[in-house]
Amino acid sequence: MEPLSLPALRRVAVCGGTHGNEMTGIYLVQEMQRKQRENGDNTWPAYVKTVLSNPKAVKECRRYIERDLNRCFTSAILSSSITETTPYEVQRAHELNAILGPKGSSEAFDLVCDLHNTTANMGVTVIAYTTKDYITMHIFKYLQAKISSVPVRLLMLDIPIPDAYSLESVGKHGFALEIGPQPNGVVRADVFNVMKEALLLALDWVQLFNSGSKMEGGQVEVFSFQKSVDYPRDPETRQITSAIHPQLQDKDFCLLQAGDPLFLSFSGETTTYQEREPLYPIFINECAYYEKGVAFQLVCKRTVNIPPVQIQKD
Amino acid sequence: MEPLSLPALRRVAVCGGTHGNEMTGIYLVQEMQRKQRENGDNTWPAYVKTVLSNPKAVKECRRYIERDLNRCFTSAILSSSITETTPYEVQRAHELNAILGPKGSSEAFDLVCDLHNTTANMGVTVIAYTTKDYITMHIFKYLQAKISSVPVRLLMLDIPIPDAYSLESVGKHGFALEIGPQPNGVVRADVFNVMKEALLLALDWVQLFNSGSKMEGGQVEVFSFQKSVDYPRDPETRQITSAIHPQLQDKDFCLLQAGDPLFLSFSGETTTYQEREPLYPIFINECAYYEKGVAFQLVCKRTVNIPPVQIQKD
Repeated sequence: MEPLSLPALRRVAVCGGTHGNEMTGIYLVQEMQRKQRENGDNTWPAYVKTVLSNPKAVKECRRYIERDLNRCFTSAILSSSITETTPYEVQRAHELNAILGPKGSSEAFDLVCDLHNTTANMGVTVIAYTTKDYITMHIFKYLQAKISSVPVRLLMLDIPIPDAYSLESVGKHGFALEIGPQPNGVVRADVFNVMKEALLLALDWVQLFNSGSKMEGGQVEVFSFQKSVDYPRDPETRQITSAIHPQLQDKDFCLLQAGDPLFLSFSGETTTYQEREPLYPIFINECAYYEKGVAFQLVCKRTVNIPPVQIQKD
Repeated sequence: MEPLSLPALRRVAVCGGTHGNEMTGIYLVQEMQRKQRENGDNTWPAYVKTVLSNPKAVKECRRYIERDLNRCFTSAILSSSITETTPYEVQRAHELNAILGPKGSSEAFDLVCDLHNTTANMGVTVIAYTTKDYITMHIFKYLQAKISSVPVRLLMLDIPIPDAYSLESVGKHGFALEIGPQPNGVVRADVFNVMKEALLLALDWVQLFNSGSKMEGGQVEVFSFQKSVDYPRDPETRQITSAIHPQLQDKDFCLLQAGDPLFLSFSGETTTYQEREPLYPIFINECAYYEKGVAFQLVCKRTVNIPPVQIQKD
């Protein structure tokens, strides 16, 4: 099969601290910045810009100050006008769009990789908006082939780019690298090392691609978002009345069948899975999703074919 | 041996949410309050008052708003005067001292149990200020004998009560129940169930004691605080430059010998344990201790004898 010709990836952005209490990306970006100060920009195979996305939230070790920054990159929000009362994160999204975008334009960075971690047992999850972003699909395939210490999976959101709300949607290509489990506000060396490995492999792939290698296509397994499930709550106070069931906790990407336990109430009753269709639960007991009304999400699995790719000849 | 006579435990306080992002105590106290609304105060063997200690911080799911509440119960802070600029948590400490104390007085609650959780792998840890608090020592001994799912240990701070800074020091007897590992802002059913079991066992013990049973004494293993160890930090920025080493992570209460790995720097170098004396590490990688400059604490192990106790005859 003839490889698809794609332009070189001349400018790559690596972002951490988009959520100010997800420490792995923060410490990894700071470590990369330290190395760039020591060794100059030639440390990396392409021009790699490192960005600490939400410095105020990082300083306070909170997810965000006024609004979740990683929900602020829709075309609608990025084209809104800024006033004195605009929330800090919306202002910061405009700044980041000016630095790494503008989103959807020819001046945007070629590739944006945003580093996240989660309290859920998600291993390494590459999150993308479309299976047509073949650069991201190929990088995922490369990570999955090379990383053996934890599972590597691809989560597809299937949202049109103008509605895509997260930072990586500002680049021509982009993905979030979501790694867990790790508590917020904490760095674990094992999780840090996996993220460092994954990021260096992604940059390896960029170097291989930029140097003219033909990257083989093939089948890729994709998990597609279906819906979110909230915690059982008290109808009056809206307080949650159950925790994730011990048999579901940490079982991200393990197929749920009708009758499987989902929740254990604080007084001891079990709630079970009632869907007819077996689906895969993900982001089980993710800390930041309590406020979003999400106990876990459900995804289905499918397989897509991606073409071989090669750098466009000038 | 003749049992030591001690007054009945007529008023017991169970507190959660002293740190507003430690969810187990918060949900357990809310569940107890729901049961008390349904069944009245006779739900429990003594008069049990349930307290949500820091409601503002609970609402924001943060450890504290202005100051760590659980460092505000020294006699000095409790006798300070309150003005308009007094931090919220100092004001709240005065309120709690009025409700559960006053600290050191004959009107204070007989027993205060404060529920905490930690990101460290601490199992069930009973924290006390003195081995002479025989009520706490006996309750610990009872929990250790009855709980089989996770290790149960006693941490002794050896601080005089006037300088004791945490909420349970307001009671005539008191202890903190520290359970982990659990991320902040998250409730795990396994951790919740262990805390519920431990608390119900503690209330069982109170009932046995109050009903006149002679409680046998014996040897108790105690871990005593020695010192804190900070993360390696950049001398200029004060940013941490290393994570807890993977071989130390989750190894709370496992004896450290000279040469054992402590830290792994973000660029890959290992730092080792250099003390001559083998000591036990605890609170390894506790989230809230980053800001306090504590990567872990070191404790030593000793054995103390406690006398049998029995309720004082009227």
